[in-house]
Amino acid sequence: MDLNEEALQLHRLHNGKLATIPKVKLENAHDLSVLYTPGVAEPCREIHKEKDLSFELTCRGNMVAVVTDGTRVLGLGNIGPEAGLPVMEGKSILYKVFGDVDAVPICLDVTDKDKFIETVRYLQPNFAGINLEDIESPKCYDIEDALKAKMDIPVFHDDQHGTAIACAATVLGALRLVKKELPQVKIVVNGAGAAGTAIVALLLNMGAANVTMLNSKGMMYEGMDMGRVNRVQAELLHKTNKQKLQGGLAVAAAGADILIGVSKAGVFTPEIIRSMAPDAVVLALANPVPETSYDAAKAAGARVVGTGRSDAPNQVNNVSVFPGLFRGAIDVRARQINEEMKKAATYAIANLVPDEELREDHVIPSVFDPKVAPAVAAAVAKAAMETGVARVQVDPEEVRKNTAARTQQVRDLMQKI
Amino acid sequence: MDLNEEALQLHRLHNGKLATIPKVKLENAHDLSVLYTPGVAEPCREIHKEKDLSFELTCRGNMVAVVTDGTRVLGLGNIGPEAGLPVMEGKSILYKVFGDVDAVPICLDVTDKDKFIETVRYLQPNFAGINLEDIESPKCYDIEDALKAKMDIPVFHDDQHGTAIACAATVLGALRLVKKELPQVKIVVNGAGAAGTAIVALLLNMGAANVTMLNSKGMMYEGMDMGRVNRVQAELLHKTNKQKLQGGLAVAAAGADILIGVSKAGVFTPEIIRSMAPDAVVLALANPVPETSYDAAKAAGARVVGTGRSDAPNQVNNVSVFPGLFRGAIDVRARQINEEMKKAATYAIANLVPDEELREDHVIPSVFDPKVAPAVAAAVAKAAMETGVARVQVDPEEVRKNTAARTQQVRDLMQKI
Repeated sequence: MDLNEEALQLHRLHNGKLATIPKVKLENAHDLSVLYTPGVAEPCREIHKEKDLSFELTCRGNMVAVVTDGTRVLGLGNIGPEAGLPVMEGKSILYKVFGDVDAVPICLDVTDKDKFIETVRYLQPNFAGINLEDIESPKCYDIEDALKAKMDIPVFHDDQHGTAIACAATVLGALRLVKKELPQVKIVVNGAGAAGTAIVALLLNMGAANVTMLNSKGMMYEGMDMGRVNRVQAELLHKTNKQKLQGGLAVAAAGADILIGVSKAGVFTPEIIRSMAPDAVVLALANPVPETSYDAAKAAGARVVGTGRSDAPNQVNNVSVFPGLFRGAIDVRARQINEEMKKAATYAIANLVPDEELREDHVIPSVFDPKVAPAVAAAVAKAAMETGVARVQVDPEEVRKNTAARTQQVRDLMQKI
Repeated sequence: MDLNEEALQLHRLHNGKLATIPKVKLENAHDLSVLYTPGVAEPCREIHKEKDLSFELTCRGNMVAVVTDGTRVLGLGNIGPEAGLPVMEGKSILYKVFGDVDAVPICLDVTDKDKFIETVRYLQPNFAGINLEDIESPKCYDIEDALKAKMDIPVFHDDQHGTAIACAATVLGALRLVKKELPQVKIVVNGAGAAGTAIVALLLNMGAANVTMLNSKGMMYEGMDMGRVNRVQAELLHKTNKQKLQGGLAVAAAGADILIGVSKAGVFTPEIIRSMAPDAVVLALANPVPETSYDAAKAAGARVVGTGRSDAPNQVNNVSVFPGLFRGAIDVRARQINEEMKKAATYAIANLVPDEELREDHVIPSVFDPKVAPAVAAAVAKAAMETGVARVQVDPEEVRKNTAARTQQVRDLMQKI
């Protein structure tokens, strides 16, 4: 059976993928009086005295909203909030399986930017974090910035930062293998949408010094026609393509050490890959069909190749990122997810492949490696505490152990269903 | 240990009561490609073509939002959305345990009526129904009416209608026991808030002809100072207290067959109960402390007494209502919950106690009777189909059997946790 048909059948058979479940038994009148009226009034009164107790006394402390307006779902475009729900729901179960985070899809029937922002802000009282998803660019930048300013819980646009972290972790692993250093390599990023700009920003923030970003018209540079540049791109142009080169991908990629695609299927031709520097690293992240297949890129001489696909080596996938990232952030009840936390997540993922295990087809851990989320959670919790955005202090080693234990419990429970 | 302390400890121990769980296994790269990218794109595309497929292909078809603004939580008043969360979360697990409905608490940080309405409307794409909860009166009426007009899924303010259905079912059972008929009896309802007005409306709708409603100042009547009457009360005054009697509870209750309290602790004195007609029925529903205790009302001569408490006979509790009601409504993908569906739920509950089992201390089924939700769901589904608000047609007997089977599965699963 073809994958699309299998997916459709499975979604229909189970009526989707996500359910709720009580964490406590409810079998008799006494249980009812403790969990509901009259007993429930007591946690209500306590939270009324001190709002932050809602993180301890309710599901809030472990609950994240996966929020979209359906304006840019996968590569399908603006298909609306109902049609975006299978993705939000899928993400919600990944949060549970990989991070024991209780995530809930919230598909909002509003595309007006200001109303969307206002609506998400109103949702704050019962969530510990907000994962923004599949929102069109450049609206997504304004939404994330506004909500970060207005909300006192993490707001994280995963299409930007989750992708950037997974990509940067792969870059770090690949560079260790080919024995090059981030500040010295020439990096070309093809695609200047939400993912592209976030990748460029994170790589610069981690020490990359020679980065060039391309949109569909070619290399972007400071001083280009500003009608074609959004504010986030404009900021990055101060720090990228310092020679203000112009031209297409073929010109940009010549001599590059690292070529990253967040663009569209097939644009990394063998000629382009062959023109790169020795020990070339190619990360072709377009979904579902990448800019080059793994095999084609290898045949054209790339030393390390990564794609978003699960049927090829070096799968670059946000699944390695968001469950552990939010696990760590909410374990220390972080007020936000800042740059240091993103960098910490990146290093944590990259460092899970020790030097002696690095191979061309293994520069990042598998998304199914059960060590990933615990490592990311611990690193993120530590960075949150060090940068002063944590509401509570927890030993990062405890965060790591707890994440391992609780995700194992989820896997065990799923065996019983 | 005192109940409040026990409740607090339990809520703290588990960090609340509600979690999510995947309905499908996710163990390897193939699972990931079917449930998430690239396979998930196929249900997205199908829903994009036909929005209503979101009910079949996603969690939406079984998901209800329990929404509040925290302005009138239990008897605690306007304590805010964070402090209301323990109640919404409690309700959510009751939905699961008693109806296998996946309910999610949504505590909105907005008290402005129009903004609240707008926000809930935006939430429509991933829910099959909306349970409004703990919203102050009279705002709650406008909110429910506006949302019913704007949304194409059931919107149900449980504090009004759930309470009314549970109360009316108890009245029906009690009247069968004392061999009186609804159109003939004199009914006094003390309390004219959300619950009181809904009880009066439902009883009238079911055939009651002699009903008097009191607010805190005394009997309400058509022509009274309209500054003290909201629009919902005003509508009911056309059909109640037709003699336009004035005076307090003592005057109103004299000779009454049925006295219902949705007011405050202790106001049903022995004198008031003694003044009622023979075979008096007293439903004292104030929470957590009722208008009279069960024993005191019996001692004062009431034949049938019901309260909201789980430690006395004849517990009148919405838990008997909302899980089955929404189970039935969403099983036929109802566009709304109308008066016929409410009446059907009422009769279904009342009829679960057959004549031969009726006793003074057993005029309604226990909230833990596993037959309640299946009976309510089947009756509600049938009424929805008959009144043309169902999107799909299902055999009500199948709804009953399925509800019994799926709630049993939930109970079984909870044994394994």
